[in-house]
Amino acid sequence: MLVTDLINVRYLSGFSGSNGALLVFADDREAVLATDGRYRTQAAAQAPDLEVAIERAVGRHLAGQAAEAGVSKLGFESNVVTVDGFDALTNEVGEHGGATELVRAAGMVEALREIKDAGEVALLRLACEAADAALKDLVGRGGLRPGRTEREVSRELEALMLDHGADAISFETIVAAGPNSAIPHHRPTDAVLADGDFVKIDFGALVAGYHSDMTRTFVLGKAGKVAAWQLEIYQLVAEAQRAGREALRPGADLREVDGAARQVIVDAGYGEQFSHGLGHGVGLQIHEAPGIGATSSGTLLAGSVVTVEPGVYLPGRGGVRIEDTLVVGDQPAAAELLTRFPKELAILT
Amino acid sequence: MLVTDLINVRYLSGFSGSNGALLVFADDREAVLATDGRYRTQAAAQAPDLEVAIERAVGRHLAGQAAEAGVSKLGFESNVVTVDGFDALTNEVGEHGGATELVRAAGMVEALREIKDAGEVALLRLACEAADAALKDLVGRGGLRPGRTEREVSRELEALMLDHGADAISFETIVAAGPNSAIPHHRPTDAVLADGDFVKIDFGALVAGYHSDMTRTFVLGKAGKVAAWQLEIYQLVAEAQRAGREALRPGADLREVDGAARQVIVDAGYGEQFSHGLGHGVGLQIHEAPGIGATSSGTLLAGSVVTVEPGVYLPGRGGVRIEDTLVVGDQPAAAELLTRFPKELAILT
Repeated sequence: MLVTDLINVRYLSGFSGSNGALLVFADDREAVLATDGRYRTQAAAQAPDLEVAIERAVGRHLAGQAAEAGVSKLGFESNVVTVDGFDALTNEVGEHGGATELVRAAGMVEALREIKDAGEVALLRLACEAADAALKDLVGRGGLRPGRTEREVSRELEALMLDHGADAISFETIVAAGPNSAIPHHRPTDAVLADGDFVKIDFGALVAGYHSDMTRTFVLGKAGKVAAWQLEIYQLVAEAQRAGREALRPGADLREVDGAARQVIVDAGYGEQFSHGLGHGVGLQIHEAPGIGATSSGTLLAGSVVTVEPGVYLPGRGGVRIEDTLVVGDQPAAAELLTRFPKELAILT
Repeated sequence: MLVTDLINVRYLSGFSGSNGALLVFADDREAVLATDGRYRTQAAAQAPDLEVAIERAVGRHLAGQAAEAGVSKLGFESNVVTVDGFDALTNEVGEHGGATELVRAAGMVEALREIKDAGEVALLRLACEAADAALKDLVGRGGLRPGRTEREVSRELEALMLDHGADAISFETIVAAGPNSAIPHHRPTDAVLADGDFVKIDFGALVAGYHSDMTRTFVLGKAGKVAAWQLEIYQLVAEAQRAGREALRPGADLREVDGAARQVIVDAGYGEQFSHGLGHGVGLQIHEAPGIGATSSGTLLAGSVVTVEPGVYLPGRGGVRIEDTLVVGDQPAAAELLTRFPKELAILT
């Protein structure tokens, strides 16, 4: 099989450069890693047991090598290889006599990646701990208060994650205040946090390639100033999120997991305001298999690591999302919470 | 034409979400932007003049819309659409009667993007200025000195870019000290900077989606401690870089631009140690058209923005790369330097 997705190459080989492909044989022939000259030293260090071919057109080169080795069927990642890339692979095997058939093999490595081993869970736990500690520090030092901008808060939180052991941030931090909190994927702006605002923060830390993902929503201002609508949707989303977490059983139908949380919101009349899926797998990518949504197919696997993140968004007013990352256990109701920052409504002054 | 590359969607529409596609008509029918429910508010704000369709499978949805509109030939980005994605488009137009032919249209928007307009150059200039100012601050405050780690330097430099107006960093910062400087794309580690080390720093700032890209290499230690081999390869790379910059004439063959710099290094006997291309376009992506390398084809266009970044890497000892970002002018030898930090060998104590 020819593996050209860079994350899959990293998962299988350890090589993390920006150009690489891997040829894996079904028999006991040794896998070959291809990359270009920039990564000669790095490839030798990260994948010391693999033969390394230095060639810029990595996929095409390995397809030729497979054909030369007499491979009759060469799997390729049809969910990754582009139409033009497929043409190049076809031409390459054609130049070697055409006896090698290219066979679609989509998502095979992604499926392996869905179940995390103990080492992967340990790295995900470290990433989530860095995020937890950063948010705790931010709140503890009064970093969330009226008068600051979304950008300032985002920047401080990102710096705190690095202080707490993150290699980098795991995706662009979302800090969304007031009406901006109604935008599910708002980017931080110079908007100023104000008394009475919802402040929604969706962020994560990266540790050794593994991502954390957590969302918390706060209210700024004195307890008496929390509006009834804010309390209502916060409690609703919290209840939906609990229902979603409790539905994380191995073997559960993914749509039913989504449905467990969604039904709570639909029953309260806010179904239209929960405009995205319930969650997704997290690992070497911030979004990976499984997707947990109303149109997902398949079941939840023990050992997968997923988010549960319902939200309710009221355009022009504000929104709430509460998100955790959890490891699905092999027993019902044994999902391990990796993001441990409290979820009770916190009213910050 | 169906545009599914997210950067191309952003370039044409202004929409910067993580799921989107654009349907553009050859006649005066209005373009349609598709995205999913998470981005309803953002799409309306960023692309107020476009019709927005809310649908998760954005490409497939717009292909169906094109078929319904009686489009006979629908261009698609064959350099972006995967083999599986193409099957989905084929099925979709088939369900609408199959009268719409899918036509390969690779790289058309990328070609438009190659020539920057004045607004784009202004943003690239701001990004390069933020990077320049950050490096000047870092050096000025003694941030590059023996005893610090690569990671500490990287982090301080990134924070300084944000202080100087960057929205974010434009790619993972490279800080590579001593023998690590021989790794062209080294990631910062806890390796400690030592007296006598080369320290190679490749970094950039992001401003409103536009990237800067610059590399500088320093020597740590007293002037008397600079080794002869360090002086030799530094001066060699500086000379090659100057030759490359001077070759940036509109209409120049891209291979000849690469060759102008490469020949200097080959003549000195270090051709094998310059293991990558000379440069690349910079804009909404950190790497975009044109590629400037030994196997590139095509010519350099006036108004393109490119890097010139030769390097010589001696495994186990150290390496030098010097990189600028420049705007190719419409007159020969009129390339405008956007990265203005000095390139003379700086020996820091």
